[in-house]
Amino acid sequence: MLFRNISYIDENCQVKTGFVETSEAKITYIGSEAPEGNTGRVIDGKGKLLIPAFYNAHGHSPMSLMRGYGENMTLSDWLNKKIFPFEDKLTKNAVYWATLLSMGESAKFGIVSTSDMYYFTEDMVRAVTESGLKANISRSIVNFTGDSFNKMESVTEMKSAVERFRKTAKGRVLMDASIHGEYTSDEATVRELSQYAKEHNLIMHIHLSETKDEHEGCKERHNGLTPAAYFNKCGAFDIPALAAHCVWVTEEDIDILAEKNVTVCTNPVSNMKLASGICPTHDILKRGINLAIGTDSVASNNNLNFFEEMKMLGLSAKIKYMDPTVLTPEEIFRAATLGGAKAQGRDDCGAVKVGNKADLVLINLEAPNMAPVHNAVNNLVYAATSNEIVMTISDGKIIYEKGEYKTIDMEKTIFEVKKAKDKILKSI
Amino acid sequence: MLFRNISYIDENCQVKTGFVETSEAKITYIGSEAPEGNTGRVIDGKGKLLIPAFYNAHGHSPMSLMRGYGENMTLSDWLNKKIFPFEDKLTKNAVYWATLLSMGESAKFGIVSTSDMYYFTEDMVRAVTESGLKANISRSIVNFTGDSFNKMESVTEMKSAVERFRKTAKGRVLMDASIHGEYTSDEATVRELSQYAKEHNLIMHIHLSETKDEHEGCKERHNGLTPAAYFNKCGAFDIPALAAHCVWVTEEDIDILAEKNVTVCTNPVSNMKLASGICPTHDILKRGINLAIGTDSVASNNNLNFFEEMKMLGLSAKIKYMDPTVLTPEEIFRAATLGGAKAQGRDDCGAVKVGNKADLVLINLEAPNMAPVHNAVNNLVYAATSNEIVMTISDGKIIYEKGEYKTIDMEKTIFEVKKAKDKILKSI
Repeated sequence: MLFRNISYIDENCQVKTGFVETSEAKITYIGSEAPEGNTGRVIDGKGKLLIPAFYNAHGHSPMSLMRGYGENMTLSDWLNKKIFPFEDKLTKNAVYWATLLSMGESAKFGIVSTSDMYYFTEDMVRAVTESGLKANISRSIVNFTGDSFNKMESVTEMKSAVERFRKTAKGRVLMDASIHGEYTSDEATVRELSQYAKEHNLIMHIHLSETKDEHEGCKERHNGLTPAAYFNKCGAFDIPALAAHCVWVTEEDIDILAEKNVTVCTNPVSNMKLASGICPTHDILKRGINLAIGTDSVASNNNLNFFEEMKMLGLSAKIKYMDPTVLTPEEIFRAATLGGAKAQGRDDCGAVKVGNKADLVLINLEAPNMAPVHNAVNNLVYAATSNEIVMTISDGKIIYEKGEYKTIDMEKTIFEVKKAKDKILKSI
Repeated sequence: MLFRNISYIDENCQVKTGFVETSEAKITYIGSEAPEGNTGRVIDGKGKLLIPAFYNAHGHSPMSLMRGYGENMTLSDWLNKKIFPFEDKLTKNAVYWATLLSMGESAKFGIVSTSDMYYFTEDMVRAVTESGLKANISRSIVNFTGDSFNKMESVTEMKSAVERFRKTAKGRVLMDASIHGEYTSDEATVRELSQYAKEHNLIMHIHLSETKDEHEGCKERHNGLTPAAYFNKCGAFDIPALAAHCVWVTEEDIDILAEKNVTVCTNPVSNMKLASGICPTHDILKRGINLAIGTDSVASNNNLNFFEEMKMLGLSAKIKYMDPTVLTPEEIFRAATLGGAKAQGRDDCGAVKVGNKADLVLINLEAPNMAPVHNAVNNLVYAATSNEIVMTISDGKIIYEKGEYKTIDMEKTIFEVKKAKDKILKSI
């Protein structure tokens, strides 16, 4: 593909204009003159802006089945009366279709890759592979009952998935390790999983200090150690790690995260919706920590709208610090793109740059909510909507264009998700 | 027009299915059988949902010229270094095109009517009239210099506009009175404008306790009186009033607003973006006060996305009260529709109901971010985007359909706004 006379956002968040060529899965040329020998589709850049695609660093794709299922409930009521009973009835078929739905929704919002923590790994891998999008899938490990690590079914499933699926779909699908959280496992499990992840070069994906209860409870359970201090002690940060939420982290916790190069994934919409709190993103950025953005599941969001997520990251920081000057649009845009790609260990993703994967989103600037343009990044972060997405491209392949899905039968997917949801509701 | 086998949200926020007919500007029939004698366009309801359109209860439409113009600045820097110098160079032509742009943007986000506080009233009226949408336009009055009310140019402009434009465009355009705020006028001006509004049956549109500085400053200037107490003393609440922001109102202020039937218009996105604070919407609703939603200007938003505004109303309340159970999706949806219509004195608007104005939005439910449907109102408030708007209808007339503007030349409007913006920037 060749984008002709296209404005694009470069790796320094500057708007440039020129020719951008992709070939197979990669960006092969960027320059002010047309490249020689292009034979592919030519897309004219008039009124358009080419940006790197978004990387969703914390999601639970199959939970699209539970969109809007429980509203206005306390966290414990929501989990115990709604989410857990529903999840107890999940099937492979339901998870497959729900993941496919989330892939379609992701493409609509410009997301090409998700750090996806759940179970039914095999069915998630199948859906992601078929969709043409990408995911770092982790089989989340919990251990409430002190079971021996190597005898747990979940561990067997995880190990099998790591063997079978890592670097499948030409590297679009990667496997992460995941200890669900401090309060859902014992110390031995954390240590053993960390060791396993180290041996297999896996990223460790963790829920960290999402709620005050979790954060304070951890200190009671572990002689005053916060979740960050506890995981650090257990070796979970001796490998590349991705800590989701980090709402209640202290200054000392931020020191640990910085020292250990842990990526922080903030989930502003979900954290506000469940009244968990607001992540101290300004302090985290000041310490040079890699910041990424996550949607969390649509059961507590209730969509995968990454424009909204970027905007809420800015707004939530401004209201937390009561200071309109914190978090620049450039910092937010970087977190949504490069920050997320880095969280997923995708070093050749997240920027419009020769040699990188062609993970791109084409934006229409000729929309009433995008005019006039004083600053394109300001408009992207605070004014754009999914309406402006002309196409979403993953590894050089168009997944979504002008409302049409190229790899997913969306009508059938919506039908099957509804059927699966109805069946589960009947069985509860 | 006839909507056949259409799901719609009725005035009690319940989803019903049937036939909905409009004729001229009104909804003329709702029933389970097809009405007799319909000869207009028939729209099949499959996969669609018909909802009342949105009423934006606080906006400054011409400020679309300044979208994304100043980011990450303190309020005083933003006003003094960016907004005021820019506004100083505004022209009639610039205001006309910028208002037209905002009308197009409004339609895209399902808004049919705006309580629009600014100046250059005549040019705003022209744009609104041409667009087919609606507005309650007020010529905002400020008086820093103790001028005599009847000798002020702004008052002359306001009076002339009230004479010429009230109930023009078949009642689509209404005139409100507006005292800009406590800190921008003296007491005599507030009293005289309130008296004038009373005599002419105008709604009074006011900025109230937006920032802590304003709220506390008022108490210093007026012997401990808060802005609400001060305006009440001056007679501004003896007429139907619309108080925008109300971030810092106290319990006693809420008593006054309840007693005087003042509508509170909350602007969640703008208040977070400028780090002004969060309106105590839960307390306001508990007192039975009419709650409406506003976008404020896109200079501090940066769009007119009413789906986002609804979602942020919910999220900001949950984080303010640190309680996920406050504000139901139904309360939020009501504020966006009936609450806003009531704020504008449009008693025959805001609900899908026979005899009401045909102000309607047709929503596509067959989208990945809208499936599955556990509860349609939950999905509308927390998952929908402008992508799902199939058409926006004002007084029975289609303004926007599938990305096309029926009454506005959007390409020309964007071009003219850009030109006007460039010209102003050059002159600063």
